[in-house]
Amino acid sequence: MKGFRRQKEQGAPQHAESHKEQADLEKKDAQPADGELSGKSTTVSRRELLKLAGVGGLGLLLGGGVGAVLSAGQRLESMVTEADTQDVVPFYGKHQAGIVTPAQDFICFAAFDLTTSDKEQVRSLFKAWTEASAAMTSGTLIGTDNENLNLPPSDTGEAAGLSPSRTTITFGVGPSFFDGRYGLAGFKPAGFRELPRFQGDALEEQWCGGDIGVQVCANDLQVAFHALRNLARIARGTAVLRWTQEGFQRTAQADPAGSTPRNLLGFKDGTGNPDTSKADEMKRLVWTQSSDGPAWMGNGSYMAVRRVRMRIEVWDRSTLGDQEDTFGRHRSSGAPLGKAKEFDKLDLTATSPEGKPLTPPTSHVALAHGDGSINILRRSYSYSSGLDKQTGQLDAGLLFISYQRDLFKQFVHIQEKLARNDKLNEYIVHKGSAVFACFPGVSQGGYIGDTLL
Amino acid sequence: MKGFRRQKEQGAPQHAESHKEQADLEKKDAQPADGELSGKSTTVSRRELLKLAGVGGLGLLLGGGVGAVLSAGQRLESMVTEADTQDVVPFYGKHQAGIVTPAQDFICFAAFDLTTSDKEQVRSLFKAWTEASAAMTSGTLIGTDNENLNLPPSDTGEAAGLSPSRTTITFGVGPSFFDGRYGLAGFKPAGFRELPRFQGDALEEQWCGGDIGVQVCANDLQVAFHALRNLARIARGTAVLRWTQEGFQRTAQADPAGSTPRNLLGFKDGTGNPDTSKADEMKRLVWTQSSDGPAWMGNGSYMAVRRVRMRIEVWDRSTLGDQEDTFGRHRSSGAPLGKAKEFDKLDLTATSPEGKPLTPPTSHVALAHGDGSINILRRSYSYSSGLDKQTGQLDAGLLFISYQRDLFKQFVHIQEKLARNDKLNEYIVHKGSAVFACFPGVSQGGYIGDTLL
Repeated sequence: MKGFRRQKEQGAPQHAESHKEQADLEKKDAQPADGELSGKSTTVSRRELLKLAGVGGLGLLLGGGVGAVLSAGQRLESMVTEADTQDVVPFYGKHQAGIVTPAQDFICFAAFDLTTSDKEQVRSLFKAWTEASAAMTSGTLIGTDNENLNLPPSDTGEAAGLSPSRTTITFGVGPSFFDGRYGLAGFKPAGFRELPRFQGDALEEQWCGGDIGVQVCANDLQVAFHALRNLARIARGTAVLRWTQEGFQRTAQADPAGSTPRNLLGFKDGTGNPDTSKADEMKRLVWTQSSDGPAWMGNGSYMAVRRVRMRIEVWDRSTLGDQEDTFGRHRSSGAPLGKAKEFDKLDLTATSPEGKPLTPPTSHVALAHGDGSINILRRSYSYSSGLDKQTGQLDAGLLFISYQRDLFKQFVHIQEKLARNDKLNEYIVHKGSAVFACFPGVSQGGYIGDTLL
Repeated sequence: MKGFRRQKEQGAPQHAESHKEQADLEKKDAQPADGELSGKSTTVSRRELLKLAGVGGLGLLLGGGVGAVLSAGQRLESMVTEADTQDVVPFYGKHQAGIVTPAQDFICFAAFDLTTSDKEQVRSLFKAWTEASAAMTSGTLIGTDNENLNLPPSDTGEAAGLSPSRTTITFGVGPSFFDGRYGLAGFKPAGFRELPRFQGDALEEQWCGGDIGVQVCANDLQVAFHALRNLARIARGTAVLRWTQEGFQRTAQADPAGSTPRNLLGFKDGTGNPDTSKADEMKRLVWTQSSDGPAWMGNGSYMAVRRVRMRIEVWDRSTLGDQEDTFGRHRSSGAPLGKAKEFDKLDLTATSPEGKPLTPPTSHVALAHGDGSINILRRSYSYSSGLDKQTGQLDAGLLFISYQRDLFKQFVHIQEKLARNDKLNEYIVHKGSAVFACFPGVSQGGYIGDTLL
């Protein structure tokens, strides 16, 4: 079956029996990869298709007493093939994948620090990462030394046989990348720097910063881990891991309809996200334009990462009324307070018969929404990292990630309001922070960061 | 759609529109829950069925240009219903679920310490946990206070709307449970104690022991986290978390055929596991018999847990030949050395033309297999817990879990051989250790541990 990880065949195009098929595949996937046509309805349909892709193990089903259902076998077979290719998000494209790509179920995030002062070595690293990323996202083993008994394998192997699982690998560089080690200080985007200290921040060095940020997302945690682990392996001698964080959303099997995921406080998170199917909106909010400067960031995007610990024990003792006033939404439906449905329009001027605002002005949604003119594309994941040794409480919360065209006009503008007044601040604390300038997409034959390096 | 988490209806049977359906459901699931008929082939068929369950969001698919494939709509619909119930592993039964149940994709493991010296409080905790576990495994919200604005919700809500995801929750008590606080010293199974120190052990207090062990497994990490978090919430005032560890295997979407999962060293792990579909074999190897004593452990099992850190950076530098000699299997196929297929019979006497044993006597498989007379049921998960702050390397490895009828005759016997001579010891280090006496299953109306308390 296509799409399942195996050794790349020498000289053969990856994942395709012929150049014709390869071309078809690229055509089919080019638009979603670019992301500008991959809106919510497409997402759901993909999830459904993935389910049908599972029928790939047809023999078993057909032998299992339910064969009659699959009477349209031939057509299903061809659908499986199509669904299979839906399991690949192309690595190459105008924009990096993993930004407007509908969020996969898992993340392995890593910040790296470079240990070299040689720009050539940085370039070599990015070239090696490009080659490995193209292989891993398409579901082939890295390199060709996977059967030679006398060499360390070029792929660590734990994802062998697993589907590509819609893996995306998204690269950016932090402000420290421009500190002069590589003669690139002059290319630093104007005003690009670590985030200001927000009120209430309790940042810990071990969760902050990094010369390079890498976001690996996939619908399988083992596949995502494999990708990050191999990137770290390839970087040895040039870069070291600075911090990492795994995260999750609900899986498609648990939520075939692809509803808005809930955070660990039990509320839907992401309802107000902009529609990634609207190319104009993405251009306005997410993609840095060449005219924004510098030129190398054209079609790139800025990533903000915040590791937000949730005080879930305190939250669990608060009443449902307090919880709903804190978010400004109903817990069960996700609807704005006083409304019935999740996507009902938020009306911050609506009042109760007694004249009180239905949505508290210091609720999370009221402050984050503001007048609605400033928005960001959120792409967050829940995390759970065992116990906090000091308190004996669960170290769990949100790995907040957002993408925006301008860090300060968008993310910082919103976060300053939240940090000052958000009712939610009683229940959360920001422990980690980083920002990365994410490159534009890579063309076939190019490498990550080639517009800068 | 049935099986998706919602408020339990007052007075209505969970998950069924009628008592008839409830009875059918129980009949259907009773055998797999008991586990003695849930062998490998059943597992695979379930995985496939789960995929089809995903088609539940039919409207979207039918409107998506692929409707023709689903012409057998009516029959598919009825299949979806059946598949849906396959998403529940019944909580009540002769044995606890989560032992011979085919391994789900994720685990949240926790060890708790009791903070009370009152046996009545321990009993109350187990009763509350029983009620919550029955709700969570069947996919309903815990309790009935989930819409009252003036109370903290009785369910924390982050799994609302998600399928039960085959959640199992398995409970056991550690040796310290019998230390006299609860007047139960006389009920301690003969010889039940923490494991002896094995050669090479580098145990850290923070990953060891516990009065109570709880293994939560599910096909969704958010669902598993939700279960563990609510058990910890319910325990407040009576027990505190001592240590926790999340873990994963590959998901069904990434491996619809349900192959043997690979560990983070890239090798298939679990090939030699006993066949859980063989009731006699499970009776011999896994289930403690009443005649083994004490009586309260009849139909229970002993769990060994080891947190095994892998030195993946060192491993990644070793040659494929070394790696295969270390495990005694081929990496790609999982076959015994010199054989072609994963399930080909292991022959430790086979030699090369030069007279050398094909499988090194100190390889992992040779030592673990021995003469084949002693076996355990392994149910392990990979873990990845960010960076080791001291070394800057990934803190990743294996949360080894095994079940056996007799801890010392089975697990300790094997582990002593491995600890002394296993070639794999160069690449792993045992950091955590715990053992738990897992109760027999709970009957409707009973509670966890009622045979002891």
